[in-house]
Amino acid sequence: MTAEIVAIGTEILFGDVVDSHSRRLAKLFLDYGVDHHRRTVVGDNLGRAAAAIRESLSRCDLLFTIGGLGPTPDDLTREAIGQAMDLPLETDHEYLCSLKEMMQRRGRVWIEAVGNMAMRPPGAIFFPNPVGAAPGILIEKGGKTVIALPGPKAEFEFILRESVVPWLKERSGSVIYAKTLRLVGLPESVVCSQIQGLLEGANPSVAPYAKPYEVHLRVAAKADSAEAAERLAAPAVEQIRDLFGKAVFGEDDEDLADVVVRMLLDSKLCVAVAESCTGGMLGSRLTSVPGASKAFLGGFITYTNERKARDLGVARVDLDKFGAVSEPIARQMAEGVRRVASVDFGIGITGIAGPDGGSDQKPVGLVYIGLASVRGTEVREERFAGDRELIRYRSTQVALDMARLEMLRG
Amino acid sequence: MTAEIVAIGTEILFGDVVDSHSRRLAKLFLDYGVDHHRRTVVGDNLGRAAAAIRESLSRCDLLFTIGGLGPTPDDLTREAIGQAMDLPLETDHEYLCSLKEMMQRRGRVWIEAVGNMAMRPPGAIFFPNPVGAAPGILIEKGGKTVIALPGPKAEFEFILRESVVPWLKERSGSVIYAKTLRLVGLPESVVCSQIQGLLEGANPSVAPYAKPYEVHLRVAAKADSAEAAERLAAPAVEQIRDLFGKAVFGEDDEDLADVVVRMLLDSKLCVAVAESCTGGMLGSRLTSVPGASKAFLGGFITYTNERKARDLGVARVDLDKFGAVSEPIARQMAEGVRRVASVDFGIGITGIAGPDGGSDQKPVGLVYIGLASVRGTEVREERFAGDRELIRYRSTQVALDMARLEMLRG
Repeated sequence: MTAEIVAIGTEILFGDVVDSHSRRLAKLFLDYGVDHHRRTVVGDNLGRAAAAIRESLSRCDLLFTIGGLGPTPDDLTREAIGQAMDLPLETDHEYLCSLKEMMQRRGRVWIEAVGNMAMRPPGAIFFPNPVGAAPGILIEKGGKTVIALPGPKAEFEFILRESVVPWLKERSGSVIYAKTLRLVGLPESVVCSQIQGLLEGANPSVAPYAKPYEVHLRVAAKADSAEAAERLAAPAVEQIRDLFGKAVFGEDDEDLADVVVRMLLDSKLCVAVAESCTGGMLGSRLTSVPGASKAFLGGFITYTNERKARDLGVARVDLDKFGAVSEPIARQMAEGVRRVASVDFGIGITGIAGPDGGSDQKPVGLVYIGLASVRGTEVREERFAGDRELIRYRSTQVALDMARLEMLRG
Repeated sequence: MTAEIVAIGTEILFGDVVDSHSRRLAKLFLDYGVDHHRRTVVGDNLGRAAAAIRESLSRCDLLFTIGGLGPTPDDLTREAIGQAMDLPLETDHEYLCSLKEMMQRRGRVWIEAVGNMAMRPPGAIFFPNPVGAAPGILIEKGGKTVIALPGPKAEFEFILRESVVPWLKERSGSVIYAKTLRLVGLPESVVCSQIQGLLEGANPSVAPYAKPYEVHLRVAAKADSAEAAERLAAPAVEQIRDLFGKAVFGEDDEDLADVVVRMLLDSKLCVAVAESCTGGMLGSRLTSVPGASKAFLGGFITYTNERKARDLGVARVDLDKFGAVSEPIARQMAEGVRRVASVDFGIGITGIAGPDGGSDQKPVGLVYIGLASVRGTEVREERFAGDRELIRYRSTQVALDMARLEMLRG
C-alpha cells in the first residue's frame, strides 16, 4: 500500500501553521508498513486542490487530506475531492440532524453554512468528531481510498486515534506496540554503537533521537494482537535496559525533572537549590512538575559573590582564592543550601555560560555542579559545548541526574 | 511570477525535520509579490524527486528546491534537477579547486565524493556557502528558473540572505523594508480592532501575531529603494507607536527580558527576585540575557511559608491570616527581597499555577505580582487562563513589564 498526504490551507502553505499533522501520519505509515512517498501543500483554491488530489491519486492507493473541512467558503476540501474523484456530493440527512442537535446543545445559532459539513459523496463514511463539528470522511472508489481529516489539532488527533488507527489496524491486520526509553548522560554515537544489531532490525524496530544530554530510543513492534506485539518488543526493551542500566531514567513522555520529583516524593526526601549561572532554571524545571511543593523547598539564586557568602555561607577567602567558578565553591554552595534550608539534598551550580567571561584557564562552558547529601558532597566538573541557553540547560540536566543517581544508591 | 517549493529528503518527509525553511521562503514570496501555490515534499529517491521537479516546473516559473545538496549518495537533488530539466551535469573546476582549498583550511581529508558538490549544469551559477560546503545553485532554462538550496539551517539562511534576497530584489526591481513592533499586555483582539485600517492595507502591510501576553505587529513595505520602502512604512510604524504608546516595548527579535536588562544596565539599576509559583523562571529569564550579572543580583525561590518568613522576613501572622497567595504576601516578598539584597527593584511573585491547589476564593491562575522600588510598592492581581507553564510564564511577563513601566516613569 502506498500513501500520500495533501494538506489544504493557505495558512499551512505560508507556514503559519507548522505541518505537525503530517509528522503524526508519517509515523503511522511507518508503523503499519505503508509506503509513503510524497506530501503536497496547496492553498485554499478549489482548482489547485482538486488537481493536487487527482495527481496524488494517480500515484498512490491511500490519500490523506488535512484541513479545509470547516463551514466557511474557504473550506473546499469536500468539493475538491468530489471533483478529483468525479463523485457528486449529497447531504447525509442523518448527520445533518445530529449536527443541528449538537449546535443546539452547545447553545449556538444554526446557520445554513454549517450544513455543508454534512455533505459527502454517496457511500462515504463519516468519522465522528465530538471535539469540534466537522467529521472526518472516508471515501472509497476503484481501489483507491481517500481519508479527509480536519485541521484543528484536537479534532485531528481525536479522529486519528478513534477512527483512523482502528481502520489502519483492521486494514493491515496488525497492531503496533511502541515504547520509548529515555537515556541520560550518554552521547548518541556511544548508544548507537552498542545497539547496532537492534537498529538494523525491522520488527521490532529501534529508532534513536538525540536530545541535550539525553538519547531517546523508540522500540516499536507489529503483530496480530496487542499482547503479541508487546511480546515481540520485550526482548529489545530488556536488552536496552540491561545494556544501559541506570542510564535509562524514564519511559515515553517522562521528563528528567518529572522522574526526580517523583523519586523525591516516593522517598519523602526534600531538595533545595543554589544557582549561579543557571539563574533559577533548575528551580523552574523542578517546579514545572505539579505537586513539586512537597519535595522542593526553594533555593537561592546567588548571582554575585556577596550573595553566595551571605545566603549560603560560602567562604569569602575561597571566593578570592579559587574564583566563583571552581570546585570548592560549588561544594560550599551545595553544602550551604543543604544546611540553611535543612533539606536532604542541596544542589549548587556555578559556571561560565558565555558568550563572554571565559578565559584560557576557565573557558565558556566550564560548569561545576555539586550535590550535598547525608553521605557527603560530590562535585562534577563539566565542559559543555553550545550556546548560553544550551550550557545552562545541560547544567540542570547533570544536576537532576546526580540527584537521581544518589537516590538510586538508596 | 509564480513560485513553488520542492523539499527533498526522507527526514523532511517523515517530519523529523520541521519544514521551517518553507515558511521563510513563503514570507519572501509574499514580500516580493511572487505568487505561491504549492509545496511538495519527497524522500531521497531520484526518480520521485525528478518527477516532482518536472511537474512543478510545468506549473510555475520559479522553483526552489531545499535539501539534498551534500556529498553523500543520499544527496541527489543536483542529479534530479538535471534529469527534470534535461540538462547534463559537469564539474565546475574553479569551484572544485576552492572546495579543495576550503577542506584543507579546515584540516579535513579530501574524499572524492566531496567533489560532487562542484557539479552543476552548464551555465548554472553557484551561490557561495562559507558556512558549510555545498553551494546553492541557480539554473535558468527556457524562461524557468530553479534555485537549489542546502538543508542545514545555518547554510540555508546564509545563502538566502546573501544571494537569494539580492537576486529577488533585482528581479522584482523592489526592496522590502520590514519592522516588527512588539506590544505587551494587550489582547490581540483589542490591538486589531484599533488598527483595522492598517490591517487592510497592502503596501505597507501590517500582520499581527499573538504570543503569551504579547502581540507582535509586522509592518512591511515595498519600494524601489531601501529608503523609499522605509519612508513608505514609517507612517504605519508611527501610527502604531502613537496608538499604543508604552505598550510597545521592543522591536524585531527583542525579548521582554532583553529590554528590561538593557534598561537596568543603561540606568545602572539593580533587581533581585523572590519567586514562589514561578520557582526560578523569572531569574532564569533575566539571566538568559548575556551581561545580566551587572543588573541582576540574584534572588530567593521561596516555595514554602518557612522560606518566605526566614529569607524575606514575611510576617508569619500575615501568612496565616491572608494565605501565601495574597496581596500582602506579594508586597512583603517584593519589599523583603529589595531590603535583604539591597537593590533598587525587588520583585515578588506568589500564585496558584495548578493543576491542583485552587479553590473557589483562590482559583488556579490567581497570581499576585509585587514590585518594590524607592517610590513604594505596587501589587497586581492577575487571573490567568491556561496550563501550569503558561500561568507561570505569563506571571514572569507581568513582572518584567511592571519593572519596565516603573523605569519608564523615570
